Amino acid sequence: MELGIIGLGKMGGNMAERLRRGGHTVVGYDRNPDVSDVATVEELVQRLAAPRAVWVMVPAGGPTQETVNRLGELLEPGDVVIDGGNSHYVDDQKHGEQLAAKDIGFVDCGVSGGVWGLQNGYALMVGGDEDNVKRLMPIFETLKPEGEFGFVHAGKIGAGHFAKMVHNGVEYAMMQAFGEGYELLEASDVVTDVPAVFHSWQEGTVIRSWLLDLMNRALAEDATLDEIRGYANDSGEGRWTVQAAVDHAVPLPAITASLFARFASRQDDSPAMKVVAALRNQFGGHAVESAKGADSPGADVKPPQL
Amino acid sequence: MELGIIGLGKMGGNMAERLRRGGHTVVGYDRNPDVSDVATVEELVQRLAAPRAVWVMVPAGGPTQETVNRLGELLEPGDVVIDGGNSHYVDDQKHGEQLAAKDIGFVDCGVSGGVWGLQNGYALMVGGDEDNVKRLMPIFETLKPEGEFGFVHAGKIGAGHFAKMVHNGVEYAMMQAFGEGYELLEASDVVTDVPAVFHSWQEGTVIRSWLLDLMNRALAEDATLDEIRGYANDSGEGRWTVQAAVDHAVPLPAITASLFARFASRQDDSPAMKVVAALRNQFGGHAVESAKGADSPGADVKPPQL
Amino acid sequence: MELGIIGLGKMGGNMAERLRRGGHTVVGYDRNPDVSDVATVEELVQRLAAPRAVWVMVPAGGPTQETVNRLGELLEPGDVVIDGGNSHYVDDQKHGEQLAAKDIGFVDCGVSGGVWGLQNGYALMVGGDEDNVKRLMPIFETLKPEGEFGFVHAGKIGAGHFAKMVHNGVEYAMMQAFGEGYELLEASDVVTDVPAVFHSWQEGTVIRSWLLDLMNRALAEDATLDEIRGYANDSGEGRWTVQAAVDHAVPLPAITASLFARFASRQDDSPAMKVVAALRNQFGGHAVESAKGADSPGADVKPPQL
Amino acid sequence: MELGIIGLGKMGGNMAERLRRGGHTVVGYDRNPDVSDVATVEELVQRLAAPRAVWVMVPAGGPTQETVNRLGELLEPGDVVIDGGNSHYVDDQKHGEQLAAKDIGFVDCGVSGGVWGLQNGYALMVGGDEDNVKRLMPIFETLKPEGEFGFVHAGKIGAGHFAKMVHNGVEYAMMQAFGEGYELLEASDVVTDVPAVFHSWQEGTVIRSWLLDLMNRALAEDATLDEIRGYANDSGEGRWTVQAAVDHAVPLPAITASLFARFASRQDDSPAMKVVAALRNQFGGHAVESAKGADSPGADVKPPQL
Repeated sequence: MELGIIGLGKMGGNMAERLRRGGHTVVGYDRNPDVSDVATVEELVQRLAAPRAVWVMVPAGGPTQETVNRLGELLEPGDVVIDGGNSHYVDDQKHGEQLAAKDIGFVDCGVSGGVWGLQNGYALMVGGDEDNVKRLMPIFETLKPEGEFGFVHAGKIGAGHFAKMVHNGVEYAMMQAFGEGYELLEASDVVTDVPAVFHSWQEGTVIRSWLLDLMNRALAEDATLDEIRGYANDSGEGRWTVQAAVDHAVPLPAITASLFARFASRQDDSPAMKVVAALRNQFGGHAVESAKGADSPGADVKPPQL
Repeated sequence: MELGIIGLGKMGGNMAERLRRGGHTVVGYDRNPDVSDVATVEELVQRLAAPRAVWVMVPAGGPTQETVNRLGELLEPGDVVIDGGNSHYVDDQKHGEQLAAKDIGFVDCGVSGGVWGLQNGYALMVGGDEDNVKRLMPIFETLKPEGEFGFVHAGKIGAGHFAKMVHNGVEYAMMQAFGEGYELLEASDVVTDVPAVFHSWQEGTVIRSWLLDLMNRALAEDATLDEIRGYANDSGEGRWTVQAAVDHAVPLPAITASLFARFASRQDDSPAMKVVAALRNQFGGHAVESAKGADSPGADVKPPQL
Repeated sequence: MELGIIGLGKMGGNMAERLRRGGHTVVGYDRNPDVSDVATVEELVQRLAAPRAVWVMVPAGGPTQETVNRLGELLEPGDVVIDGGNSHYVDDQKHGEQLAAKDIGFVDCGVSGGVWGLQNGYALMVGGDEDNVKRLMPIFETLKPEGEFGFVHAGKIGAGHFAKMVHNGVEYAMMQAFGEGYELLEASDVVTDVPAVFHSWQEGTVIRSWLLDLMNRALAEDATLDEIRGYANDSGEGRWTVQAAVDHAVPLPAITASLFARFASRQDDSPAMKVVAALRNQFGGHAVESAKGADSPGADVKPPQL
Repeated sequence: MELGIIGLGKMGGNMAERLRRGGHTVVGYDRNPDVSDVATVEELVQRLAAPRAVWVMVPAGGPTQETVNRLGELLEPGDVVIDGGNSHYVDDQKHGEQLAAKDIGFVDCGVSGGVWGLQNGYALMVGGDEDNVKRLMPIFETLKPEGEFGFVHAGKIGAGHFAKMVHNGVEYAMMQAFGEGYELLEASDVVTDVPAVFHSWQEGTVIRSWLLDLMNRALAEDATLDEIRGYANDSGEGRWTVQAAVDHAVPLPAITASLFARFASRQDDSPAMKVVAALRNQFGGHAVESAKGADSPGADVKPPQL
């Protein structure tokens, strides 16, 4: 079928290519004229026959909002917009309402697959009305991996990005689990070959997984991880997962611990631990002596006591 | 080669069978005479030619200690004992020293594989001296899965059970990760088909894993998990993992959160939360009034203040 | 000085009373005509001489927003609005900008003190411009407790509610700390008089505190806490604390654990633990047998392995 | 009454002094002859009239065990040993049994009070038989602070050190709570005077406490804590608290988070976070390229997929 794509970066460009290989007609727009099929979003809309489908693949937040605004002006009733970026599910709901007011459909789609998606397909998590999703199935069928997995119509508008967000939260905790296991093995006096332990786990264990395979790739390249600093960024999706949990009153201790471990990994020094150190100092004998010296020995000053 | 096995339960019996199928000569002893090849441990030792190898597959703690004691009395210098049970790595070190005093070798072996091990092989994590491990390689080769994975000589005595313990700790956190993700998806207003989301994740995602496959088996049997109570036991190994982390000053937040979640799942009511509720009650207006009534209004009583 | 107060509930009414006792002229408005000095907010504004100060003491969210909107219409340049409710600091910033556009000042004030504030004073945490805060100092001086503590100009608009929010987060973790300590003491075989332990801690220890005093009040009323269910609600401020931490990339493990413990205390059954139980079930022998029965023994079915 | 004290360091020496001031007859032994009243433990025992009471105030572990062993040899039936050090409650139970076999009594006593105990008294938490505790009450009465608080007979042998251990666990979480609150306030854009916020909290708030007073002392000395590194040691008692919780299946999330935060504060780099960084690296495009270069493009190599 015919599809407009706005945003032809690494992800959008590869998805356009996979769709063309699958026999679809793709009209792409990008701010970079070298990769763009059309000069403007307006032209893109004109090039498509109604009812149109336009896939938005631009950064979450401001750029996505601006694109939705622009499409709201240009599209016609019966057209549909798909947000395939990393938007927050709450924004999806706003965008859905905004477009519904003009009888334009909206579908959100969480996409997993990275640079290998062009070849192997993308895992797709989709939210929106049954009608809109059905109509877009030819596109989803081409983008997804072969076989029975890798695509889900998860629910209403926002459900696709919600599912993708939770996927990433689970991912955080699984990575943390391997990290903690590694650290404990490294700390052991009796275990002398940690990479060999991880290598062996790839068969016959409960924890065999794609992340374990990646872990073994990493250890094959650098057996002691000496070349890598223990500094971990976090994508917004881990934060959103914890905030959604708080909003829904869902306890999420392992995932949250994983997010906090990343925050801590980026600190040169921990303000919280400064406080703990300062308090330990205060009720130790040494600090008390200096405090005595500094204070005038007024009756109101409660002496520190252990 | 020739091997004695003490303990012919579900695990020990199947391992004996797999070894026999692999061409080894196995002499098994069990307290249950129906499955035992010999009447006593003494007879088992007599039936084996020196230097002997005896695999102990009995419950950790008392039974293993008694068996090691008995073998210490019966075996000769140059023989070797393998503890294939779920012993604590600290006990391995004691057992190793106890037997070394009599020039008897000791190897610990963490075993993973459950009821499918007979057919597919067991993942083996081994600790002990290079010489003893080498000598037992024919046994390990038969027990392990085919291919390059599923066996590791992890280090010194205790390293096998240490590695298995950490494996189980990682397993706890991975299971918790899926549990937390499931709970958050279930709490969502927008996601309407949670089992379909998990189903889709089996291809093209970062979190694809054997546990995810099991999760999907479970959801296929009971899509809402209504038949299952949120009550989770814990094997000793999760506890040992956390205690080892504390001993080694290793922060293990996600794994520990997973263990604590299991503890909490088994409580009818939480004493800690009784305290929190009681404290909230105390500084609310209602409780203050009743406290006022109970106290004589002496000058020493500090009034509660929010 | 002269002050308008909107909202004369338990808190607002007592604050008005304390201010009158302190010599201030208070004009109060409430939707309940029985306690209101004026019939409308419009009348309240008319009764005050410019430049006016109006204290808003209504529920956070919608009611506060509506009141700010209305005051924006009625007040004049040079007037100032104080939000003494439990607003989110982010809303303060919006309200501040909204009123600044009309040259109306805005100050946010986090208030602690409950029913005892009338008598003992309220702890006040204030955010806003130096000029506005200075001008309102006569009000703050009367509301705060006597002595050097209990008042802070914490920073810009939002800082008062931010500080109050953090106070409540710290409070959550302190309550959780006592709860955990209580639960561990109760679980001990050797400690036979837990209330006596808490009682003794009120002098000479590091943890002596007002919350410990409250804990001892609670234990004096119900030594085993049998009458109290371990069910703890949470005010919005604990959630906001965790969400602010996530927004600021600050690890907050103890406070977050305390919030999650409250969430869990309100669940009849834990969906996450259902998953953990289901997964344990899947790789145990029993479940495998039922799974075998259900599946056709096709080659694609990976057998579960421990 | 008459008391022998073994160990006249900072704590033991001051306790001896407080007892003497209170009218008791104290015979002290220390390895340092300058402070010792007797040349040997044997002489100490000889100087006391039966039935004797000997207070042991030496480091936990080996030194305490050796002292208990020696006293077991020297004392007579009817004598009693008090362990006032920081022993693990499990060791108390062993020591109690060891001495009971010789009809020598044993009492454990957790002591809090530091350098201020000489003047203000020590908080005492005691475990042991009713008879032995009663007999020692004159000693405890002199050592404890004046008033109704600061002493508890908590239960059986071990209960004193168990209660002290839990006290320290609670202390960890309270310190962590203040640390987390401080860090979040520091991270805020709107709060500009964090020390003033803590200062104000000393009156009228829920979290007022002795630790908050200490926090304000620390901030008075160094308003930004710039002079203090966020590096926090841990006494053994925090570790024991978590391990006791694991032994008793008690979830202790806030206290454990506090312990782990201290562990992490002492790491130059986090091995767990190296793993997380390495895994993130593996499924990013860059790392995949280098992995492609390194691998021979064999069919077995599963390509990384996001």
